[in-house]
Amino acid sequence: MSASPHGHHGAAPVITLTTDFGLKDGNVGALKGVIWSICPSARIADLSHLVGRQNIVEAAYLLGRSAHFFPAGTVHLIVVDPGVGTLRRPIAARIGDHYYVCPDNGLITVQLERAEAAGDAIETVELNQPEFWLPEVSDVFHGRDIFAPSAAHIAGGASLSELGSLIWDPVRLSLPQPSKTETGMQGEIIHVDHFGNLLSNVMREQLQGISPDRVSVRVGGIEIRGMVRTFGDHADGELAALLGSSGNLIIAQVNGSAADRLGARAGDRLEVLTS
Amino acid sequence: MSASPHGHHGAAPVITLTTDFGLKDGNVGALKGVIWSICPSARIADLSHLVGRQNIVEAAYLLGRSAHFFPAGTVHLIVVDPGVGTLRRPIAARIGDHYYVCPDNGLITVQLERAEAAGDAIETVELNQPEFWLPEVSDVFHGRDIFAPSAAHIAGGASLSELGSLIWDPVRLSLPQPSKTETGMQGEIIHVDHFGNLLSNVMREQLQGISPDRVSVRVGGIEIRGMVRTFGDHADGELAALLGSSGNLIIAQVNGSAADRLGARAGDRLEVLTS
Amino acid sequence: MSASPHGHHGAAPVITLTTDFGLKDGNVGALKGVIWSICPSARIADLSHLVGRQNIVEAAYLLGRSAHFFPAGTVHLIVVDPGVGTLRRPIAARIGDHYYVCPDNGLITVQLERAEAAGDAIETVELNQPEFWLPEVSDVFHGRDIFAPSAAHIAGGASLSELGSLIWDPVRLSLPQPSKTETGMQGEIIHVDHFGNLLSNVMREQLQGISPDRVSVRVGGIEIRGMVRTFGDHADGELAALLGSSGNLIIAQVNGSAADRLGARAGDRLEVLTS
Repeated sequence: MSASPHGHHGAAPVITLTTDFGLKDGNVGALKGVIWSICPSARIADLSHLVGRQNIVEAAYLLGRSAHFFPAGTVHLIVVDPGVGTLRRPIAARIGDHYYVCPDNGLITVQLERAEAAGDAIETVELNQPEFWLPEVSDVFHGRDIFAPSAAHIAGGASLSELGSLIWDPVRLSLPQPSKTETGMQGEIIHVDHFGNLLSNVMREQLQGISPDRVSVRVGGIEIRGMVRTFGDHADGELAALLGSSGNLIIAQVNGSAADRLGARAGDRLEVLTS
Repeated sequence: MSASPHGHHGAAPVITLTTDFGLKDGNVGALKGVIWSICPSARIADLSHLVGRQNIVEAAYLLGRSAHFFPAGTVHLIVVDPGVGTLRRPIAARIGDHYYVCPDNGLITVQLERAEAAGDAIETVELNQPEFWLPEVSDVFHGRDIFAPSAAHIAGGASLSELGSLIWDPVRLSLPQPSKTETGMQGEIIHVDHFGNLLSNVMREQLQGISPDRVSVRVGGIEIRGMVRTFGDHADGELAALLGSSGNLIIAQVNGSAADRLGARAGDRLEVLTS
Repeated sequence: MSASPHGHHGAAPVITLTTDFGLKDGNVGALKGVIWSICPSARIADLSHLVGRQNIVEAAYLLGRSAHFFPAGTVHLIVVDPGVGTLRRPIAARIGDHYYVCPDNGLITVQLERAEAAGDAIETVELNQPEFWLPEVSDVFHGRDIFAPSAAHIAGGASLSELGSLIWDPVRLSLPQPSKTETGMQGEIIHVDHFGNLLSNVMREQLQGISPDRVSVRVGGIEIRGMVRTFGDHADGELAALLGSSGNLIIAQVNGSAADRLGARAGDRLEVLTS
């Protein structure tokens, strides 16, 4: 059974918002105003508005960690849009049970890869039916004028095929993958969170079958020996390697900031020794 | 037909919140608790809680850019209130299709000016009926004790005349207007947004009929020649003059911060050459 | 009559969120997704996600100032959880008319103390029925995997006794109390708010019967003579002692930051002279 944007059991539809707009200017509010003008019953949740400016990769990973916790039928509106007003296409996609509305710049790469691995249905359209947009479209704020109205119409029951024409080639990011080395793996820090934890692209599956005692991690000039199960397994201030809540290998300083301690940031390399 | 705070087609009423409270102390939460205690069906959207402390002008411009994207009948609660506990009046206003509840210090100046220009109806009352407030009113948090309950009662269907007595002289800010010069106009930076874009008070209408090629902008000691349509029309790192999404002339650095580049901030002058 | 989580008059249940997660990573969004997957009708309000990292005391005070403004039946979800994944218990409590779901580390101390003083009913359970949690529980994000689902089930009508076993000894913080001195009281700064106001643990009740003119406050090396009623009673830039909106003695700089001016922060001592 295909998911309906109207949610389970007739519940009000859900729309999530992910942007790099920040929180001070009122632009997030404008999105909500537009949405409720079109789909008054929508429940709206902010995923994040503090994505790094124009940082498509950060937004793609964030969606990959959070979007699937929402109910089937949720419409995810994502506006990180360095190409606004240029030829990049506006798109909407149904990927498995969820909907996505965003510029076609790779924001839904993680979702597409997962759906393909799982054999989930994917349908993508280029938004090219202006009757679903605001009457006046500015050249610099498609989030408000094209994407928010489109998300609201989907939440209200419009089908993707009404909103645009099928496309088969949404843009994909080339996200870094860990590579095997003689002594283990080389990975990358892909996110530094609010606590200063370092999330890497090394996943639980890639560590399967290896005893946690025999895993060491080199990052920022130091080596952490052994993995622990949770933060509390080390004393305050110690560095720890463990699996984060999305299955990523993470480096944390117990009740402190590993990022500050190690001077590390997204894009830095990390080496996993498994001998 | 007059807008009802109950929204379109019986949809739940909408209340927006604009304050300088910041997001860490729980005071925004207290407003929502008070609202839902009085009007459980209200949908609430944050416009911004990062208005500069006591910065009435910034809040007035923010409302001017964002409030009208909400549906008819929306109640806008605005609490930027340097005069809390003093003789400044608490007010509520119906301006066109929308409602506003705030201290009488100029916060709704832009809305009043626009409504007058458009010939929209305006009704303003001084909130002086304490039975619509919280039972205990502190001397330092009228947002929670007077304004939030009043907004919730309006959302719930109370009329302005129940909440207070008509007034005809709400306080107005004297917002800076661009002035004509021999070579064009002199304007002012009125807002620096999250991206570091500089919004000026020079509006689309004032540039009408002038070819974008023939417009130059002097700001922060440099001159930008010609206006572009959108960010992507210049290469990364270049400065561009263009029309923002609210019709203001803005100065942007493509995928960067014009404010950092130029050391510019709200209140700085800018010169527009149209020869 | 006991409060129902279903709210007044059949209104949708309310859940508030208080965490130290910050706003950039999408983790707050994940909580909302989990909640709406279980209880689609829940209205959700953020109290704060900018509690200091692992700062249980700050969260406890914040709840004490804000939670009671929500309607009877509200479920407060609080996740400040330095002991995640260790033996600290997950708990849920009904305290008077409100529900609380959190790790058992003292977060609800203020609520418990108040309820005991008022003779309100208290019921506390250890959450130990995994069928109310997400199917997979990570070792590092119980907020998402245990607490959010539990809060959603309570909002949806589950009783505490279904979710866990009664306990009688929830952890309490030992919150600092002012002590009497020969010349008055010695108290402590317990919070610095967004405006730079200093909130102390000296309460209105402890100053009852003393003329505001005869109260002086020593903090950060200076002495403020007399208390005022509200900010506007002093000129811009002056320091003032007054009662805050929760009844705490606070030190403020009129339209400025007392914290910056005095270099003061939470934990600093303050002396109240009442002679």
